[in-house]
Amino acid sequence: MNKTNQRLFSGTDAEVALAAELFDSVAKLPIISPHGHVDPRLLAENKPFPNPAELFIYFDHYVTRLLHAQGYSLADLGKGKTDDASARSAWKILCSNWHLYAGTASGYWLTNTFEQLFGISELPSAENAERLYDKIASQLLEPEFLPRALFAKFNIEVLATTDDPTDDLQFHAALAVDANFAGRVIPTFRPDIYIDPRATNWKNNVAKLVASASLVELNYKNFILALENRRAYFKQHGAVSTDHGVYEPYTASLTDSEASRIFETALAGSASETDLREFAGHMLTEMARMSCEDGLVMTVHAGVFRNHHQETFETFGADTGHDIPVAAEFTNNMKALLNKYGTHPNLTLILFALDENVWNRELAPLAGFYPAVRVGAPWWFFDAPDAAMRFREKVTEIAGFYRGSGFIDDTRAFLSIPVRHEMARRVDCMYLARLVSAGRISEHQARAIAVDLVDRVPREAFKL
Amino acid sequence: MNKTNQRLFSGTDAEVALAAELFDSVAKLPIISPHGHVDPRLLAENKPFPNPAELFIYFDHYVTRLLHAQGYSLADLGKGKTDDASARSAWKILCSNWHLYAGTASGYWLTNTFEQLFGISELPSAENAERLYDKIASQLLEPEFLPRALFAKFNIEVLATTDDPTDDLQFHAALAVDANFAGRVIPTFRPDIYIDPRATNWKNNVAKLVASASLVELNYKNFILALENRRAYFKQHGAVSTDHGVYEPYTASLTDSEASRIFETALAGSASETDLREFAGHMLTEMARMSCEDGLVMTVHAGVFRNHHQETFETFGADTGHDIPVAAEFTNNMKALLNKYGTHPNLTLILFALDENVWNRELAPLAGFYPAVRVGAPWWFFDAPDAAMRFREKVTEIAGFYRGSGFIDDTRAFLSIPVRHEMARRVDCMYLARLVSAGRISEHQARAIAVDLVDRVPREAFKL
Amino acid sequence: MNKTNQRLFSGTDAEVALAAELFDSVAKLPIISPHGHVDPRLLAENKPFPNPAELFIYFDHYVTRLLHAQGYSLADLGKGKTDDASARSAWKILCSNWHLYAGTASGYWLTNTFEQLFGISELPSAENAERLYDKIASQLLEPEFLPRALFAKFNIEVLATTDDPTDDLQFHAALAVDANFAGRVIPTFRPDIYIDPRATNWKNNVAKLVASASLVELNYKNFILALENRRAYFKQHGAVSTDHGVYEPYTASLTDSEASRIFETALAGSASETDLREFAGHMLTEMARMSCEDGLVMTVHAGVFRNHHQETFETFGADTGHDIPVAAEFTNNMKALLNKYGTHPNLTLILFALDENVWNRELAPLAGFYPAVRVGAPWWFFDAPDAAMRFREKVTEIAGFYRGSGFIDDTRAFLSIPVRHEMARRVDCMYLARLVSAGRISEHQARAIAVDLVDRVPREAFKL
Repeated sequence: MNKTNQRLFSGTDAEVALAAELFDSVAKLPIISPHGHVDPRLLAENKPFPNPAELFIYFDHYVTRLLHAQGYSLADLGKGKTDDASARSAWKILCSNWHLYAGTASGYWLTNTFEQLFGISELPSAENAERLYDKIASQLLEPEFLPRALFAKFNIEVLATTDDPTDDLQFHAALAVDANFAGRVIPTFRPDIYIDPRATNWKNNVAKLVASASLVELNYKNFILALENRRAYFKQHGAVSTDHGVYEPYTASLTDSEASRIFETALAGSASETDLREFAGHMLTEMARMSCEDGLVMTVHAGVFRNHHQETFETFGADTGHDIPVAAEFTNNMKALLNKYGTHPNLTLILFALDENVWNRELAPLAGFYPAVRVGAPWWFFDAPDAAMRFREKVTEIAGFYRGSGFIDDTRAFLSIPVRHEMARRVDCMYLARLVSAGRISEHQARAIAVDLVDRVPREAFKL
Repeated sequence: MNKTNQRLFSGTDAEVALAAELFDSVAKLPIISPHGHVDPRLLAENKPFPNPAELFIYFDHYVTRLLHAQGYSLADLGKGKTDDASARSAWKILCSNWHLYAGTASGYWLTNTFEQLFGISELPSAENAERLYDKIASQLLEPEFLPRALFAKFNIEVLATTDDPTDDLQFHAALAVDANFAGRVIPTFRPDIYIDPRATNWKNNVAKLVASASLVELNYKNFILALENRRAYFKQHGAVSTDHGVYEPYTASLTDSEASRIFETALAGSASETDLREFAGHMLTEMARMSCEDGLVMTVHAGVFRNHHQETFETFGADTGHDIPVAAEFTNNMKALLNKYGTHPNLTLILFALDENVWNRELAPLAGFYPAVRVGAPWWFFDAPDAAMRFREKVTEIAGFYRGSGFIDDTRAFLSIPVRHEMARRVDCMYLARLVSAGRISEHQARAIAVDLVDRVPREAFKL
Repeated sequence: MNKTNQRLFSGTDAEVALAAELFDSVAKLPIISPHGHVDPRLLAENKPFPNPAELFIYFDHYVTRLLHAQGYSLADLGKGKTDDASARSAWKILCSNWHLYAGTASGYWLTNTFEQLFGISELPSAENAERLYDKIASQLLEPEFLPRALFAKFNIEVLATTDDPTDDLQFHAALAVDANFAGRVIPTFRPDIYIDPRATNWKNNVAKLVASASLVELNYKNFILALENRRAYFKQHGAVSTDHGVYEPYTASLTDSEASRIFETALAGSASETDLREFAGHMLTEMARMSCEDGLVMTVHAGVFRNHHQETFETFGADTGHDIPVAAEFTNNMKALLNKYGTHPNLTLILFALDENVWNRELAPLAGFYPAVRVGAPWWFFDAPDAAMRFREKVTEIAGFYRGSGFIDDTRAFLSIPVRHEMARRVDCMYLARLVSAGRISEHQARAIAVDLVDRVPREAFKL
C-alpha cells in the first residue's frame, strides 16, 4: 500500500488496511453532486479557464478570507480585476502565504487539486509562484482541461447548480439538448430573497417574481402562484430540490388571510418585525407544502450571519468571506413545519447546520423520528477531515447511516469537486473501519455501508 | 486475548491490553442501576416475556423511532397490538431493516443482547426473521429466561424504577417481602406533573396528590405537606432518589405567601406565564429543601422538548420517539437553588444533560465547586460508545472521576441492562488505559479508578 | 526514547516518534507568557516561597475547588491562614484526596511540577503528606528556589501580569531598573471595574480612576482622558496589552453625547439596564479605538458568571472557585466593534471563550476574515491535554495555525508555568504529527509550524 492511498487514514495497521480496502471499493464510483454553486455557463460555453488566479482565488471566498485576515485587501486578491498582471500578483500572494493554509480545508483541496490534476507536488512559495502560474496556465489551454473534459474525467453523474427562481435556465436547457454533452446538470430553486420580506429590495423582488410567472397583479395569491409556477419550471428543467439559506430556521403556519394581510403591509413597508418573521416562517412551511405536492426535496442551510462586515459588503458585494455562523436552534423553530408535513410521504427535508452542537442535540434526533427529515452533511466551514469525522461520530450513534444527505460539496470551485468527494469518502471509510475494529459492526456491513453512503443515500435523499 | 474481549477497545497493543485487563477487573462486579424505567410488576409477577416483538420493539422508543423515520407507522410496529401475527410482522420489519441500526446505540444493545443472551450471532434479516423469532420465543418460555432468573443472572444488586408520587408501590412492597426474591428493587419519586403547574391536567393532578396523602383541603400548605408525605412513603419503600424531567432547569425561590398566591391563581387558571415559570422553579428549589431534610438524592434530567409531534402524541401517547433535545442552560437557571442549598451536606443533586456542550461548559465546573452537585452520566441519545468517550474527555479534565453519577441505564428494556453497563465499563477502561499510556495517571491509579467508577461512585452518588 | 519523553503522545510508533522529534525542537525555546496573574511583587522582593500549602493551595482556586466540592471548607484549605499548623493541615487534605485530581488539569500540573522541580515521583497520600511537606519546605529555602532563580531556570523571556489601571506599577518599575534581574516583567491594563457601570462600587471606581490621572472633574470626557492617560502610563511601563473579562462580549457604538448622558445617569444611579449595557458595550468599542491609537493588543475573556455562590463570595471574596462559564456569542455581540475597527491595521483583538462550541462556530470564522481578530488559546477549564487537542482540531481546519494567540498560561501559580507551556507544546506537536501521518501537511511544514507556534505566533499576536 503506498502512502497516497493511506491519506486521512490512521490507527492500527488492520484499521488502515480495512479503510483502504473500503475506499478502493468506492473510489471510482460516480460523483453525485446534488448541491453546489458551479455556474452552468461554464459547462454550456466550455471555454478554457482563464488563468490560475481567477480559477483558484478570485471567486473562492474560502481562499481569499485567510489572505484578507493576513492584511491583504480583496482588491489585491483580484476582486474585479481581469488583467494578467493582477492575476499574477494575486497568485503570488497566495503562494507566498502558503503557510496560512496548512491544516485548513482550503489547503487540503488546493494541495490535492494541484497534485492530482496538474501534477504539482512541490509546495507553492514566493520562489516558485511564477513558475507554477505558467505551468498551470499552459495546462488550462489544453483540451483535457476544458470544463466538459474535466466533468467527464471527474466522473460526475449529476451536478446541481443553485439558481434564482426567475432565472430562465437557458444554460441548463442548452446543456440538456447538447449532443456533445452527456452530463446531467440540473438547477436548484433558491427563493430566499422572495420569501423573506426582510430581504433587501424585497418589494422589487416579488414584483419581478410575479412577472416572471406571467402574472399581473401583485398580491399574496399571485405570489404563491408564481412560486408554484416557477418551481414547476425548474422541475421541468431537471430540478430535484429547493434550497433555503436562513439566519434562523424558524417556521410558522398562518391562515391565508393572515398571510395575505402581512404580505400587503410588508409591501407597504408597515409590517412589524414580528409579522415579518412570522411571514418568513410561514413561507418556509409553504415551501414544504409545495414540496409535498411537487416532490422537490427541500434543503435548509441555517445559522449564518451574512455580510457581517458592512464596508466589505458595500465595496465587494456578497459571498466575500465574512458570512459568520451563529448558534442554531431547530427543535422549536421547525415545530410548525414538522407538525404539518413531517410525516408526509412526499416530503424530504434536509437540515444543514454550522453549529456542530446541533448535529446530535437536534438534527439526528429529528431525523431519527420524522420520515421527512434528513441530517445534512458537514458543510462549508465543516467540509474538512476532522469535522467530517466528528459528524459521523456524533450523528451515527443516534440516527445511523441512512438518515443523512450524502456528501454535498456546495462549491463554486469546480476543480475542487473530486478532492472534496474523495475526502468525504476517505473519512467515512476510516470511520467504518474503526467501527469494525471496535466490534460494533461486521466487515460485511461496513462494505455495504461504504457503497451506500456514496450511492444509495444521496440518491434517496435527493430523489435521483 | 480473543476478539470479543477487545470490543470497544482501540489504540496500540499496550493500550488495548491494559484496557482489557482493567475491564476484566470490573466485568463481574454487580450492576448498580439507580435510575431506570423497568416496570416493577415484571419482577413481582415473574411471568415469561410474551414474545420477541413485545420484548424488543413495542415499548422501546429507541428502536421504533428509526423504523418510524423509515416510513413505518407506529401501528405497524405493534403499538396497541397483542396478537401473534402483529408481533411477527413487527419483528420482520425490524429484521428487514437491520441496516438502519448499524453504528447506533440501539443496534449495539440489540446485537449484543441477541448474542450474549440468546446465542444468536448471525445478523437479523428478512430471510432469518421468522427463524430468529421462533428461536427467541421458545427460549423465553424456559425458566432461565423468567425475569427473576435474568435479574440474578445479570448480577443486579439494586434496580431503581421510576414512579408516580401517588403510586401505592404495591409491587415494590410485594418484592420486598417475597421470600423467593433476594433482589433489591426500589422506587424513585418523580413529581413532574404535580410540581409544574404548566403540566396537562395539573389541577386534577394536585387534587389527586393531596388526596393520596389523606389531606382534604386543596391549598399550597397541603400541597407541600402531601409532597413531603409521599416522599416519606417512597423512602419507607426503599427510595433513595427523586427524579425531575424538565424542559429547562430553571430554579427560583419564592416566599411562602408568593408561592401560595401563585398556587391559588394557577388552580383558578388565571396565573401568568411568568408566575407559572416562577412557581415551577420554586418547586424545584423546594424539592432540594426536602432532600436536605429527608436525604433523598435529587436527579434532574433537563433539556427535552417532549411530544414534539402532536398527532403522534394524540394517537399513541407519550414516550413514542419524538422527544427532541434543546439547548440547555444550568449556570443561571440553577443559581437560586444552589445559592440556597448547594453547600448543604445532605443534598446530592445530579444534573443530566442532552446538550453535550454543557458537560464541560457548566456541569463539570458546577460539580467541581458545589459539594451537592454531580455530573450525570451520558444519557438517552448519548448512551453509546463515542458519546460516552467524549463525556469522559470533556468532564474529567475539569471535575475528575469522582464528581459523577456512575453509569445509569435509564431503560425500560430490561434485557439491555447488562450490555449497557458493560458498554460503559469498557469505555471507561479504554479511557483510563489512554491516560496511562499518555503518562497522565499511573497504572495503579487506573486500577483503583476502574473499580471506583462502578462501585464507590454510584454508591456515593445515590447513597446506596 | 524514554517514557517521559513520550508523555501526551499517542498513536502509531511513527506518529509518536515524529511528535517527540518536533517536541525536541521546541522544548528548550524560551517561554513567552503574555497573559497571567503572577504577582510582580514576588519577583521584585525575591523572598523564599513561604510553604508548600501557600504555594500550591491557598491561592489556586483550580486546586481548592475540587476539595471544596468534596466537602472541605475554604477555611480548612487555608483561606486567610498564615500559621504552620494550618498550612500542614491544608497540605494533608490535598495529599489525602489525591485521587480527586486524577485526569484533571490541576493534577497534571501538580504531578509534573512535583516531579520536575522537586524530584518527587511518588503519588501524594495521607501517609507521605508530612514527609513531602518537609521535603518541599526545605527545598524552598534553597537559593535555586527563589523566584528569580526559578524565573531564569524556567527560561521565561517575558512574563505579563494583570493590573488595575490605577496601579502605580512600582514593582514593574523596580524590576525594570534592577541590575540583578534580567527578565522582562510587564503589566497588563485591565479596566473591567471602571468601564462597566454595572460593576460593584462603580461610582467610586471611576472617581478613583479620574483622580489617578490627576484630573479633577468627574465627567465622561475626563473618564475617557483618564483611561487614555493610564493606558499611556502602562505602555511606558512595558505593557503590550489590555485585558477585558466580560459576562458577554457585547459591543456597541454610541455618540459622545449619548455616552456622556448615560455616564451621568449611571453616576446618579438612575440609568436603565439597557443603557448600562449599551454603555459597557460602547466602552469595549472605545477600548478598541484606543488600541488603534496606542497599539496595545486587546484581549477579551468572555462568558463567565463570576462569583456564582454569594455566601462564598461574601466570606472569602472573588477568585475562590465558583466562577462558572455560560454560553457565549460573539458574531452578533462583536459586530459593532468589528465594523468600526476590525480591519484597522493597528488593532489586534484576541477572543477567548470557555464555550468550546464557539471556537469553530464563531471565533475561527471571525479570525479567518478580520485582520484584527485572533482566536485565543484554550483557557482556564480548557487548559488541559484533551481540550487543547480539540481546540486544534476545531480551529485549524477553518483558520489554520497563524490566526491564534499562542499559548497563554493565565495563571497565578508561578511554579506551574513551565509544565503548562510544555503541555501545550506537546499537544501541538502531537497534532502536527497526526496531520503529517494523515498526509495533510509535510514534515517540513510541521517542523516550521511547531516552532512558529511557540515563537512567531505569540510574538505577532502580542506585538512582542
